[in-house]
Amino acid sequence: MSEQSLSDGPARVVTAALLIIGNEILSGRTKDANLAFLGENLNDLGIQMSECRVVRDDEADIIAAVRALSERYDYVFTTGGIGPTHDDITCACIAKAFGAAVIRHPEAMRRLTLHYEKTGVEFNEMRQRMANIPDGASLIDNPVSAAPGFKIGNVYVMAGVPRIMQGMFDELRETLTGGDKKQAVSILCPLGEGVVAAGLQEIQDRYPDLDIGSYPFFRMGQIGTNLVLRGFDEAALAAAGDEVRALVRAHGAEPEDSAEDWK
Amino acid sequence: MSEQSLSDGPARVVTAALLIIGNEILSGRTKDANLAFLGENLNDLGIQMSECRVVRDDEADIIAAVRALSERYDYVFTTGGIGPTHDDITCACIAKAFGAAVIRHPEAMRRLTLHYEKTGVEFNEMRQRMANIPDGASLIDNPVSAAPGFKIGNVYVMAGVPRIMQGMFDELRETLTGGDKKQAVSILCPLGEGVVAAGLQEIQDRYPDLDIGSYPFFRMGQIGTNLVLRGFDEAALAAAGDEVRALVRAHGAEPEDSAEDWK
Repeated sequence: MSEQSLSDGPARVVTAALLIIGNEILSGRTKDANLAFLGENLNDLGIQMSECRVVRDDEADIIAAVRALSERYDYVFTTGGIGPTHDDITCACIAKAFGAAVIRHPEAMRRLTLHYEKTGVEFNEMRQRMANIPDGASLIDNPVSAAPGFKIGNVYVMAGVPRIMQGMFDELRETLTGGDKKQAVSILCPLGEGVVAAGLQEIQDRYPDLDIGSYPFFRMGQIGTNLVLRGFDEAALAAAGDEVRALVRAHGAEPEDSAEDWK
Repeated sequence: MSEQSLSDGPARVVTAALLIIGNEILSGRTKDANLAFLGENLNDLGIQMSECRVVRDDEADIIAAVRALSERYDYVFTTGGIGPTHDDITCACIAKAFGAAVIRHPEAMRRLTLHYEKTGVEFNEMRQRMANIPDGASLIDNPVSAAPGFKIGNVYVMAGVPRIMQGMFDELRETLTGGDKKQAVSILCPLGEGVVAAGLQEIQDRYPDLDIGSYPFFRMGQIGTNLVLRGFDEAALAAAGDEVRALVRAHGAEPEDSAEDWK
């Protein structure tokens, strides 16, 4: 049991959603890497990634999605569409979603001016668009390439390039307030999931507050299944984990605790 | 120009959406590979992937998402949640979304019985759940592991494991009817996107029916930008491509036609 026992009351569940903006993700041209990064890193903070949407570079679609997600989840993150070119329309859309004007943000201008002076690159009008920020938003620092993201309401607007997004997330990580953190027990078993399915169902029925997932794999010609138990109540998790190990042994196989406690 | 000139009338745009079902994608445990595969392969058929949602293994969330996507897009594909374990709830949810009962499908039972006879594995009650199909749905063949997917209305329900999903997609590919196929011109330029941004904006304004995308990259210490033009009208695409090449040259650099005509 952790210092803070979680079985004494309902868990404080804090949720997040990700909105990925960009035709190139939908066309398959670019493979998204931001969902997996945010899912893992938010979980470490006690925030559960609960939905993700990918939309085209389309004003109405972006506005509708950000409103729907912002109403439903505690935190919303967006990635993509904040560069200097005409197809970067995220700022304007988020501003409209919140009924805010877009202003040329003085602090963002200062940072970008400094960055382009240092790098000797012309700070032209299109690059100055990256200092456009919805009125009332606060900046998210960009330690990689200067152009800031921003936060408005519960929406965090970040770059799409993974290295830049990760740098921004590192800057804002400490400002996020998580709830109880889901713990996980991961048990590897050298059986097809159909073998343990009935027993797993029974264990799930006895522990309705846990999520028990079954993820089959083929590895080096061998069939196997990762059985992952997740929940807030560590005592229930430990007891259910023991039942799953006993189930695997009852089918003549040896369970193995996986080194990865979340994956 | 292709045999069928597309500049004579409005393009026939056929759209699709993908619904990815599974906690493990949102937690970051598993990285989705199905969106990129379907985005590319549907485009080859003249079908535009227009939205993607990732939802948890939650009945209400799955039903709401599949209804919203089914109403809006021509085709909806789902991946994940059709295995033998208790957490595989996709079939029941899709059936509810369409107001259909779930039946034990005779042909699915026949295929699975044969498969398990061949492999010498017990065809137990939980594995028989994989023959549960919404009443009125038609089967999607699974050349990899027998358990079929299914189609109901405009929704195609497929496995989440990429190898199985791709096998299913190959089986149903010929049954899909695309519209006009978007063509792409991809031009690599050794300049930051901020350099060409103003000129690109002007070209985009002159060709409002084309999508002009700007995708910056860093490669071997060099900054560069992929400029990708997409559209139905090949003549407009060729003319706009020439303008983009001229723009790059006007900034003292040599454009390079990228071998990848879609990526």
